[in-house]
Amino acid sequence: MVKVGIIGATGYAGGELVRLLLSHKEVEIKWYGSQSYIDKKYSEVYQNMFQIVDEICMGDNMEELAEQVDVIFTATPQGYCASLVTEEVLSKVKVIDLSADFRIKDVDIYEEWYQIKHPSASFIEEAVYGLCEINRDKLKDARLIANPGCYPTCSTLTIYPLLKEGLIDPSSIIIDAKSGVSGAGRGAKLDNLYCEVNENIKAYGVATHRHTPEIEEQLGYACGEKVVLNFTPHLIPMNRGILITSYASLRNGVTEEMVKDAYHKYYDDEYFVRVLEGSNCPQTKWVEGSNYVDINYKIDKRTGRIIMMGAMDNLVKGAAGQAIQNMNLLFGLPENMGLQQVPLFP
Amino acid sequence: MVKVGIIGATGYAGGELVRLLLSHKEVEIKWYGSQSYIDKKYSEVYQNMFQIVDEICMGDNMEELAEQVDVIFTATPQGYCASLVTEEVLSKVKVIDLSADFRIKDVDIYEEWYQIKHPSASFIEEAVYGLCEINRDKLKDARLIANPGCYPTCSTLTIYPLLKEGLIDPSSIIIDAKSGVSGAGRGAKLDNLYCEVNENIKAYGVATHRHTPEIEEQLGYACGEKVVLNFTPHLIPMNRGILITSYASLRNGVTEEMVKDAYHKYYDDEYFVRVLEGSNCPQTKWVEGSNYVDINYKIDKRTGRIIMMGAMDNLVKGAAGQAIQNMNLLFGLPENMGLQQVPLFP
Amino acid sequence: MVKVGIIGATGYAGGELVRLLLSHKEVEIKWYGSQSYIDKKYSEVYQNMFQIVDEICMGDNMEELAEQVDVIFTATPQGYCASLVTEEVLSKVKVIDLSADFRIKDVDIYEEWYQIKHPSASFIEEAVYGLCEINRDKLKDARLIANPGCYPTCSTLTIYPLLKEGLIDPSSIIIDAKSGVSGAGRGAKLDNLYCEVNENIKAYGVATHRHTPEIEEQLGYACGEKVVLNFTPHLIPMNRGILITSYASLRNGVTEEMVKDAYHKYYDDEYFVRVLEGSNCPQTKWVEGSNYVDINYKIDKRTGRIIMMGAMDNLVKGAAGQAIQNMNLLFGLPENMGLQQVPLFP
Amino acid sequence: MVKVGIIGATGYAGGELVRLLLSHKEVEIKWYGSQSYIDKKYSEVYQNMFQIVDEICMGDNMEELAEQVDVIFTATPQGYCASLVTEEVLSKVKVIDLSADFRIKDVDIYEEWYQIKHPSASFIEEAVYGLCEINRDKLKDARLIANPGCYPTCSTLTIYPLLKEGLIDPSSIIIDAKSGVSGAGRGAKLDNLYCEVNENIKAYGVATHRHTPEIEEQLGYACGEKVVLNFTPHLIPMNRGILITSYASLRNGVTEEMVKDAYHKYYDDEYFVRVLEGSNCPQTKWVEGSNYVDINYKIDKRTGRIIMMGAMDNLVKGAAGQAIQNMNLLFGLPENMGLQQVPLFP
Repeated sequence: MVKVGIIGATGYAGGELVRLLLSHKEVEIKWYGSQSYIDKKYSEVYQNMFQIVDEICMGDNMEELAEQVDVIFTATPQGYCASLVTEEVLSKVKVIDLSADFRIKDVDIYEEWYQIKHPSASFIEEAVYGLCEINRDKLKDARLIANPGCYPTCSTLTIYPLLKEGLIDPSSIIIDAKSGVSGAGRGAKLDNLYCEVNENIKAYGVATHRHTPEIEEQLGYACGEKVVLNFTPHLIPMNRGILITSYASLRNGVTEEMVKDAYHKYYDDEYFVRVLEGSNCPQTKWVEGSNYVDINYKIDKRTGRIIMMGAMDNLVKGAAGQAIQNMNLLFGLPENMGLQQVPLFP
Repeated sequence: MVKVGIIGATGYAGGELVRLLLSHKEVEIKWYGSQSYIDKKYSEVYQNMFQIVDEICMGDNMEELAEQVDVIFTATPQGYCASLVTEEVLSKVKVIDLSADFRIKDVDIYEEWYQIKHPSASFIEEAVYGLCEINRDKLKDARLIANPGCYPTCSTLTIYPLLKEGLIDPSSIIIDAKSGVSGAGRGAKLDNLYCEVNENIKAYGVATHRHTPEIEEQLGYACGEKVVLNFTPHLIPMNRGILITSYASLRNGVTEEMVKDAYHKYYDDEYFVRVLEGSNCPQTKWVEGSNYVDINYKIDKRTGRIIMMGAMDNLVKGAAGQAIQNMNLLFGLPENMGLQQVPLFP
Repeated sequence: MVKVGIIGATGYAGGELVRLLLSHKEVEIKWYGSQSYIDKKYSEVYQNMFQIVDEICMGDNMEELAEQVDVIFTATPQGYCASLVTEEVLSKVKVIDLSADFRIKDVDIYEEWYQIKHPSASFIEEAVYGLCEINRDKLKDARLIANPGCYPTCSTLTIYPLLKEGLIDPSSIIIDAKSGVSGAGRGAKLDNLYCEVNENIKAYGVATHRHTPEIEEQLGYACGEKVVLNFTPHLIPMNRGILITSYASLRNGVTEEMVKDAYHKYYDDEYFVRVLEGSNCPQTKWVEGSNYVDINYKIDKRTGRIIMMGAMDNLVKGAAGQAIQNMNLLFGLPENMGLQQVPLFP
Repeated sequence: MVKVGIIGATGYAGGELVRLLLSHKEVEIKWYGSQSYIDKKYSEVYQNMFQIVDEICMGDNMEELAEQVDVIFTATPQGYCASLVTEEVLSKVKVIDLSADFRIKDVDIYEEWYQIKHPSASFIEEAVYGLCEINRDKLKDARLIANPGCYPTCSTLTIYPLLKEGLIDPSSIIIDAKSGVSGAGRGAKLDNLYCEVNENIKAYGVATHRHTPEIEEQLGYACGEKVVLNFTPHLIPMNRGILITSYASLRNGVTEEMVKDAYHKYYDDEYFVRVLEGSNCPQTKWVEGSNYVDINYKIDKRTGRIIMMGAMDNLVKGAAGQAIQNMNLLFGLPENMGLQQVPLFP
């Protein structure tokens, strides 16, 4: 049994970690951390857990926690995990950080986009970016895993094969993203009130969203050159789900066949990535509650561009599910253990 | 392994049966029946099943099916299952009918409220009403199980203990019910279009809804006398969930303690019924995707009435989940096998 | 031109007052009061008003305001209007209070249910309860109008004719109410976040909601005796709308004809109350954005009860629209002036 | 008084025409045409019109109608209006067609994208494209107006100034569009059921949507050269609203100032187009129920692209509202008469 501690267990991503880990048969949750609800029963914060979880919420002492568990998940605001991690901690326990603290290799870029000073930049180099389908081998031996952001996970998986195979022009990439509201977290903010979000759609963080450099870095690795792209997220009146609609110019001579082959080359053996058939477009509802990413594309011969689409559940493959996928890799468990939920429809 | 056939696998209840049975480790689905989508891949009808279910949809030959499987679920319109069931079929296979055909013992009442002639009334007596928490013992040996309606399941479980213990006046019961839209099925009707339902609430079937006599019959068994009550369902703009708000006059001398004891007497050992603590009100979101029913009550001393509330997922405990619970009873499996999903939140 | 000042113009009810008053041709808004957004442009708080309203938000000085305007609307938290009203103010200006401060004649009941000390109880007697259809004559000469609560407006109008005509038993009344989320106001609270409310339904304030004594008082006037009833509100995932489903026992000998006549007697000449035809059930979407209340009923001969249903927009007839209807009465304008919006569908 | 006839009055666009025309003081609706509901009371089809509209639905005899009214609105499926229009009709009455029949000047393109034979191509040349802000002068004398599509209206208005002023590269345009469900009409189709659309988002008609050539033609007029672009619509779980997020490369040397000036040059005098301030992003809720289009942009210096955003209500400015704006132009009425509704929020 893998003994697990969660710091930040009462946010939406933390709650999803609990939901998924409870059905993982090789895991035991030892620590429900939540600074805000300390000493309160976890099931009073999340009443869906009533009679399922009896534990109370604990504080965030990472050093104490490192003695008790095998792996710590941190689902906390930016800067927090980085302020807790030490060499001593990492010598005792694996850390999977769901925040952005260790995702970006260039600390200057991190500090510029997040507008905070990185408190433990020395661990950035060691941290492995936890996009399992791409970094699987490196992840197995990591001590510190930077679990990818929701938009970067979906964007990177959707575009990666074509960029890796050199079929699209990296300078032409535009990503138009749409997310459900749970991605904004459980904080009590006016902008996330029901009446403000419902029956409404808007773009936000246009040309300034913090996931932009993360996506650019990962896609840069795919094509071996610096990628600069447009990324525009939108808020959609639904609880869960991310849809990526991305555009790029096909390189000269690229055929439909070559595109199809590229997707199948990288994803035919991937349990969680489903390349749809025919002209079926990914829909977020078809993956809700599961760790799947559904991907498909359409070539527009009139413009020479390809439209690449990807859908996933932002709280599962975009956060908690992928974190557990990383944990499975770390502990030598089957990668899809505890993650075989069939999507919930309707 | 229990071999399962589903007739009506492409409605919402049928789809939910598939979702749940796929994670049941003692079950193998052998037959995805759907007259409307015959020969079409099941995963083209429900794209969430892509790369999970490879089978194609089959016709509805119950006699042939009886040779191949151990249990048949029928998730079909009223009158259809009754037209297929024969002595020969029941001699070979268990049948769990999710329609109303065998729920009501008095065939005249069935024919009056459903406005159809019952095609096989001779099996009504034998059929066992599949409300597991109440009829558990009788269900284990049944050949034909009438899986309860969604509203009757939630209503009966919410009110049962107080009526059984004689704490409320049967003639005073009023049930005000609220349901998500999936209860209306997957038929393409104007009334169920997104724009007609969204941002809207209405009562429907007022004083005429077909679930009324089913609830009255079951509550009548609880108190040993004929029950006549008001039942008013409402359509709520959400996919899943039923909330029951029911009212009754407390009998003279009944105390808060007696009410509390009654609920705990009947439900403390029930895995799927959660009597909430304090003044927590049941919420449908807290049980979504799971087989739980959350129940609580509030005594209003000013009026002498009690408000009894219950929440569940109409497609799980209100249809497919309860059907599987019945199947587990039939085949001697642990009653909660394949039904331990943690509710999905948010 | 009636010169209007609004205190609390940036809550949802305040915003609706602005929307409606802008299309009222005999009104000029002179004061957009909002303590929270003082000195900020109103159209930055409500971007729908961009290029429509150029004014900035002002503080809450009621005495100064009394010099400048003919009528003050207060759309503020409980206790606030009562703390501002003075004899001097009322000698200069009409006050229409959208809070509960002057709705309940018995100050002890107010203080018990609202748990606040009433700061100006001496004005309660003078205040007129602003349910126009019932108190029209008294309202014309009022100085201080207590604009009714949303639930009480819909509940009272739905039940009033039958109680007034003695057709139902006052002790048997049960009101099961459903409201959209805007009724909860624009405060940034966890419970009103999109992800907490969406795909969810719950009862709240069961047997303790503050609108209970207000409804009881008004219905008591109708039947000439003390009324004690059950009132259970529910939160529905939609922006606007209230639906009342109420139950009562018909008195012996009451016929369908008598019920129909009662509704038509009181409402045939009312512009804003529409008694629906046949078995059409009121739906909140059919009145959205308008000042209409749609009402209908169904007699259940099996139980001897009648189900009385009413639907309206909580922000219009339930708040801002009714306040303007009251203003029209006060200033001798046609009662429906500025309130003839056709409901928005879909 | 302008006498109006509506053919197709019971679709969502037809219903919106009725809602808006009822508050237009120079209009009298003489004919509620609806082949599907002939002889049925209009207010039984749209219960929001109860006690507001007493008329019954009529058939579609355009020749008879031409004798009785001054202007006919056709809110009907593609090909239908074109099959009814004749020289005799146009000699007697103005026709404003909300379908696509007369929008595209090149009949081959129409027939290719719509896959129907145009039944009256000879009138295409005469028809004026009803985008009032751009074709105002030509519209005043038209006999036949092709009311623009919803996506083309929002897309064209959002991009037009920059293209007209030569600030962006026409070959670089990508339009990522999002629409509420009412755009799909009131037909009873599986894809538009509540449970299929709710909590879901998908792209549709990728690289094949029929509004593509319409947008390309209009933008082509703006820049004086053939435009070929990508247009990707998405279905959003909300009733109303369209949001356009469009991307283009800025030409060398174009500054923020030049972009700002271009928008203000074309729109400062336009009542219905609001160029937002600062970095405020258009939101569909801020224009709901109104004829406004909210527009803003953001330059991304990193990529050299500009993101141009526009939001409007698809049923108002995207259909019925714009049709009335056109009618006002035709009859010499103030262009915003009957169209000054303040957007409904929330």
